[in-house]
Amino acid sequence: MHSYEHGGETYDKEITLDFSANINPFGLPEGVKDALLKGIDSFNVYPDQHCRKLRTDLAKKIGIEDKSLIIGNGASDIIFRICFAVKPKKALLLAPTFSEYEKALKAAGCDIDYYALKAEDNYCLTEQFINALTADFDIVFLCNPNNPVGNILEKRLVKKIQKVCKEKKIFLVMDECFLDFTNQCIEASLLSYIKGNENLLILKAFTKFYAMAGLRLGYGICSNRELIKAMEYAGPSWNVSIPAQIAGIAALKEDAYDKATYEWLLNERDYLYEGLLRLEFKVYKPEANYIFFKGAENLYEDMLEKGILLRQCANYRGLSGEYYRIAVKTRKENEQLLKAIKEWRAYA
Amino acid sequence: MHSYEHGGETYDKEITLDFSANINPFGLPEGVKDALLKGIDSFNVYPDQHCRKLRTDLAKKIGIEDKSLIIGNGASDIIFRICFAVKPKKALLLAPTFSEYEKALKAAGCDIDYYALKAEDNYCLTEQFINALTADFDIVFLCNPNNPVGNILEKRLVKKIQKVCKEKKIFLVMDECFLDFTNQCIEASLLSYIKGNENLLILKAFTKFYAMAGLRLGYGICSNRELIKAMEYAGPSWNVSIPAQIAGIAALKEDAYDKATYEWLLNERDYLYEGLLRLEFKVYKPEANYIFFKGAENLYEDMLEKGILLRQCANYRGLSGEYYRIAVKTRKENEQLLKAIKEWRAYA
Repeated sequence: MHSYEHGGETYDKEITLDFSANINPFGLPEGVKDALLKGIDSFNVYPDQHCRKLRTDLAKKIGIEDKSLIIGNGASDIIFRICFAVKPKKALLLAPTFSEYEKALKAAGCDIDYYALKAEDNYCLTEQFINALTADFDIVFLCNPNNPVGNILEKRLVKKIQKVCKEKKIFLVMDECFLDFTNQCIEASLLSYIKGNENLLILKAFTKFYAMAGLRLGYGICSNRELIKAMEYAGPSWNVSIPAQIAGIAALKEDAYDKATYEWLLNERDYLYEGLLRLEFKVYKPEANYIFFKGAENLYEDMLEKGILLRQCANYRGLSGEYYRIAVKTRKENEQLLKAIKEWRAYA
Repeated sequence: MHSYEHGGETYDKEITLDFSANINPFGLPEGVKDALLKGIDSFNVYPDQHCRKLRTDLAKKIGIEDKSLIIGNGASDIIFRICFAVKPKKALLLAPTFSEYEKALKAAGCDIDYYALKAEDNYCLTEQFINALTADFDIVFLCNPNNPVGNILEKRLVKKIQKVCKEKKIFLVMDECFLDFTNQCIEASLLSYIKGNENLLILKAFTKFYAMAGLRLGYGICSNRELIKAMEYAGPSWNVSIPAQIAGIAALKEDAYDKATYEWLLNERDYLYEGLLRLEFKVYKPEANYIFFKGAENLYEDMLEKGILLRQCANYRGLSGEYYRIAVKTRKENEQLLKAIKEWRAYA
């Protein structure tokens, strides 16, 4: 048996509704699908190792220099490369947060301290975190919005963290992979601090927003050229496949898909959030495309029996099996889930 | 400017004929293409992290247990994972050989000694290599057939190396990625030594034989379960994309493609080999799908002007810019190359 580590692990289960992975329910954009179909005869050759076309287009869209970009086989590839390139001795991680940071740091032989987010703070980061940023840390990973909690970090606090990390020479990795799903994707981002801070890397992904998790495509933004180069050498060559590069280039033109996604999400997130509140769970205010709530240990198995997969948070450091993270999906799917939980409630 | 490291770097050049990458010229097998087209609507979800279906099918085809397999984002992914998992302090590499071993070992902070293959031995490995295998080495990488030389290592010698490495606890990585292209893919392989040797890993790829370099798919065979597990943790999750998994599963059924490849290769390799001999180059007897020869420094630039890309071997440790490695391609393409070189000869 393999251990259950992440959402989206549907391959050894009978699943009809997967709420465990936070993927845009619109599926691959049509323009991306077309580009893949047109490109299939190019899959035989080696990919461009330097992702030249994708980097140029992406840099232009973001408004940065293409030399400040590194493209990866999913954001997780960038997480590993930054750890192998920086070779940190001591890291600070939130608990709970995305588990891939811990996996990568351990692979790089780094000691880890955990900063426990508190239930009484609704698992939000507070000003007190600043005191934890001592100069003995080489690297800190933050996630905005945090996974699985789904809250946007307060901008004032994020700016302060960035400043303190810079002063104390703690490398700051800010994972903004889910920030595109919020209504503060520009305001809450540290993008404007990239220029002038060589100790900062922002993580982003195409995976979730453009529903291309199966293709693997993520990237890092960092003004430290030496470090970008070291990251290129800290992992295999040709890591970004041709389908991923084609899909990324095409996705950048999907303005209508972007717009439709925002419209859907604003409605559906509230619908699902309020539905869960009515079921009398402790539900945390969601700001991305997923919702964090406190249910009951047996909800996972009971829903699985109905073919519905939830992301139980038992293996998040600092959480127990009563906590869940679910994706916001289409109205029909969200209705099905709420109905299933309501029946479960009545029966329990 | 990016450095030129490998074959297949056509993205910043005007190339009509790429002889620099050793890819099957038949292109993606039709069955693979069909499977990709049928599977495109599944690209939105996360890949199976454990590649269950592909591992099962592949293990069956090879005749080993699926637990002895690790699938990677190309063979280069496996090369990095083995280095990060074994954490060797001192390694022995051939010179010349495939540069990815050195890159991965350096990323893992390993010291490297180089064993120089000699021009007077036609860059072949000899019995003397056994004396170089001292117990202070933690790992050794061999490549069979070696890249860029293209000679199969003598079976008797390979068996002996395996035995000595086992005795001296030197981890042996045997890269057999190009062995499928030879007529000794079973006899020359160390596959039968996998069971009973926990210090041995065999590297294989789908990339070259099934012309899916753009999709990235390679694997490792190793009976050391602890090590396989450590390798799974030594790199990013979801590293093998859905298109790669789909393509691999479909490729395993391509018996007719396999047969056609062998038929083409036996003819064409000899044709190109003899053509180069007639041009009075020093040509090394090829046993895989590429040919190594000694030309002249300026051949690279002169061919590039005609839109023909060769793999100049200047950046292989121990070789100079006079050495080249070229892929065996279709008759028409091979004719074009020979004609172009003949004209260059006449002009020079």
